[in-house]
Amino acid sequence: MRQRRGLRLITLTTDIGSAYAAQMKAVLAHRVPPGSVVDLAHDLRPHAIGEAAFLLRAMAVGFPAGTVHVAVVDPGVGGRRAPIAIECADGSTLVGPDNGVLMPLADALGRPRAFRIERTNLHAAPVVGTTFDGRDLFAPVAALLAEGVGASRLGRPIRPHKYALPVARRMRSGAHGQVLHEDRFGNLVTNIPSEWIPAGTDRVRLGFGRDPARTLLLVASYERLGKGRAGLLPSSFGLLEVAVAQGHAARRFRATVGHTVTVGWPTRSSASRT
Amino acid sequence: MRQRRGLRLITLTTDIGSAYAAQMKAVLAHRVPPGSVVDLAHDLRPHAIGEAAFLLRAMAVGFPAGTVHVAVVDPGVGGRRAPIAIECADGSTLVGPDNGVLMPLADALGRPRAFRIERTNLHAAPVVGTTFDGRDLFAPVAALLAEGVGASRLGRPIRPHKYALPVARRMRSGAHGQVLHEDRFGNLVTNIPSEWIPAGTDRVRLGFGRDPARTLLLVASYERLGKGRAGLLPSSFGLLEVAVAQGHAARRFRATVGHTVTVGWPTRSSASRT
Amino acid sequence: MRQRRGLRLITLTTDIGSAYAAQMKAVLAHRVPPGSVVDLAHDLRPHAIGEAAFLLRAMAVGFPAGTVHVAVVDPGVGGRRAPIAIECADGSTLVGPDNGVLMPLADALGRPRAFRIERTNLHAAPVVGTTFDGRDLFAPVAALLAEGVGASRLGRPIRPHKYALPVARRMRSGAHGQVLHEDRFGNLVTNIPSEWIPAGTDRVRLGFGRDPARTLLLVASYERLGKGRAGLLPSSFGLLEVAVAQGHAARRFRATVGHTVTVGWPTRSSASRT
Repeated sequence: MRQRRGLRLITLTTDIGSAYAAQMKAVLAHRVPPGSVVDLAHDLRPHAIGEAAFLLRAMAVGFPAGTVHVAVVDPGVGGRRAPIAIECADGSTLVGPDNGVLMPLADALGRPRAFRIERTNLHAAPVVGTTFDGRDLFAPVAALLAEGVGASRLGRPIRPHKYALPVARRMRSGAHGQVLHEDRFGNLVTNIPSEWIPAGTDRVRLGFGRDPARTLLLVASYERLGKGRAGLLPSSFGLLEVAVAQGHAARRFRATVGHTVTVGWPTRSSASRT
Repeated sequence: MRQRRGLRLITLTTDIGSAYAAQMKAVLAHRVPPGSVVDLAHDLRPHAIGEAAFLLRAMAVGFPAGTVHVAVVDPGVGGRRAPIAIECADGSTLVGPDNGVLMPLADALGRPRAFRIERTNLHAAPVVGTTFDGRDLFAPVAALLAEGVGASRLGRPIRPHKYALPVARRMRSGAHGQVLHEDRFGNLVTNIPSEWIPAGTDRVRLGFGRDPARTLLLVASYERLGKGRAGLLPSSFGLLEVAVAQGHAARRFRATVGHTVTVGWPTRSSASRT
Repeated sequence: MRQRRGLRLITLTTDIGSAYAAQMKAVLAHRVPPGSVVDLAHDLRPHAIGEAAFLLRAMAVGFPAGTVHVAVVDPGVGGRRAPIAIECADGSTLVGPDNGVLMPLADALGRPRAFRIERTNLHAAPVVGTTFDGRDLFAPVAALLAEGVGASRLGRPIRPHKYALPVARRMRSGAHGQVLHEDRFGNLVTNIPSEWIPAGTDRVRLGFGRDPARTLLLVASYERLGKGRAGLLPSSFGLLEVAVAQGHAARRFRATVGHTVTVGWPTRSSASRT
């Protein structure tokens, strides 16, 4: 089940910037065809574990079975969190520090089995310092996995730290959630499923914090908002998104990742009266 | 004519950032060799149609015949502009929303034939939301085209929205134009052809707006300016560029994309008198 | 020794941004398999020769023998510095302007032999302007080299401009150096070798300028610092790094690339007394 025709891909997701990521690619270039290494993102918000976990799942879940996904967003680099590899139901393997970033993707891919990477047997490149596991540990391990080595051969089974993305709470006519992602347009992606909103709703109340004080349009596309106008949309993640058409919602509302958000919508009966 | 030896390339040009672009790559990874996908830019100025159209032409026009160019810079995403594919004289195909971004490239490649992408028959990936055509529509279509499917099989012919880059106006001893691009150094690339300036000219007058009040050096290279000095150069696009050597012209002149620019040069007779 | 199995890689390192780099890739796409072109960085600090030289060495030195490394960080573009290609002991070739950026890498790879690129015989693409050697000169030359053409066939031998990274000065119980790199976290990588600090040292004095007025922790990993706390670490470059855990050292200390740094540590005798 783990084998694929042809190339086993390696994806790279980090917050370390292109120059450090290049050092990971140098290690990989010795072992795998360069075309098989796919940059997902190297400009993730520094040290933002939750947002990285959310984006890694969104980016990586669509890749072919058997892909090796390396994710290094690691405020504790060089510290005590174990380096791990997680093998999933479709033969994909996730590689990175055991700090939670891998877990939403692992849960989405299913049947995760995690192994602690025992460092000493796997150093394919000399270790120059102690602050760049991406280059010295995860890149050589990714090459091994892409060559077909099973994760179980990297070390002992480990129970990885649990990490789940925050789940929105549904209320009678609204929801209480969090901002999971601020994109480069300043759109704020929440963790509130778009499908919770009753069909036919075209206005919702919104607040950052507990009080949904503003009334905003709920639209199907940015275009419907009109330039500069704020509104809510079903995002491409299947989650509600706060946006300002051709503007910047994060600055408009002084909100970003981790902020609490409350959305209210009309109850069916009140909606039908409108 | 449309066939190339070996690989048909797919280029990606967007303003959506690496994390969203990665989701397009995930779709493509199922269908084409990963080495055949080339990132051009994912950090274009958000929603800047004109600048994107200019840069797409400059970036993509040099690629081999038969390449599939996907461009998603789309303030109206999810709205009413049609998704289109444009087949050009050399067998290259352009894919994106019908908002003008593709047109200067299409015109440069010649003999464009546009087709509306009929969504319903082509969804190779499940549609999760309605705000990310790049992933749900254009990426699977690009894979089809790279596999050799002709654009005419994607849907009915369509007359795409006209869009041409603004053209500079030549005057008796000067030109009136616009800034098309601000690069990461703050250089301002105008739409005034460098060749309009008479040979031997070494000083020009420059103004943002109608009044070319400043006199600046016209030089062949940044080096000739001296650090911190502003001047005009023939840019690599064949267009006049306003630059500050090792400085930032956009901040110096408080000008950017879309701003009007007026350049004046000596008439031949007055130049010879100098 | 110069031949490798299969693909000869081409790496690209620039400060020009993705849109200009894409034009280099267009030229390369005609001549080499797209998977053989590896982006190292296109977002280097504009015109920062010294930092580029430092990062190029760090990024490129780990690539396989025979790789072609193109580096375009060129404040004097179009000026008088010669375009050069440097062949090194392992068959790798470095391509770029003769402004020093290539030299630390050339010295690290060993036995550098430099040749002036004689422009006129090598233009594989039409020259549109005079300000983008990356596209018009270095990309076609890189393709030639990747095809196996020796650098000596590109032009006459040349003695390249000397350039070496600044070397730290060791003192009796400290060192005097410079900041070589500010990374995207704001960490400041100095040129002071980590190994100069006596084993067992856990506190050092630090100052930007001559006076090491602050006492900071010396730790093995960011995690040991605790969030928001400043300290020194052995960086992944084998050099001392000033960091603020999950913070921004450059802003905290108002220091960046090129700034002088003084570090003091206890002498062995005083250390043993503590």
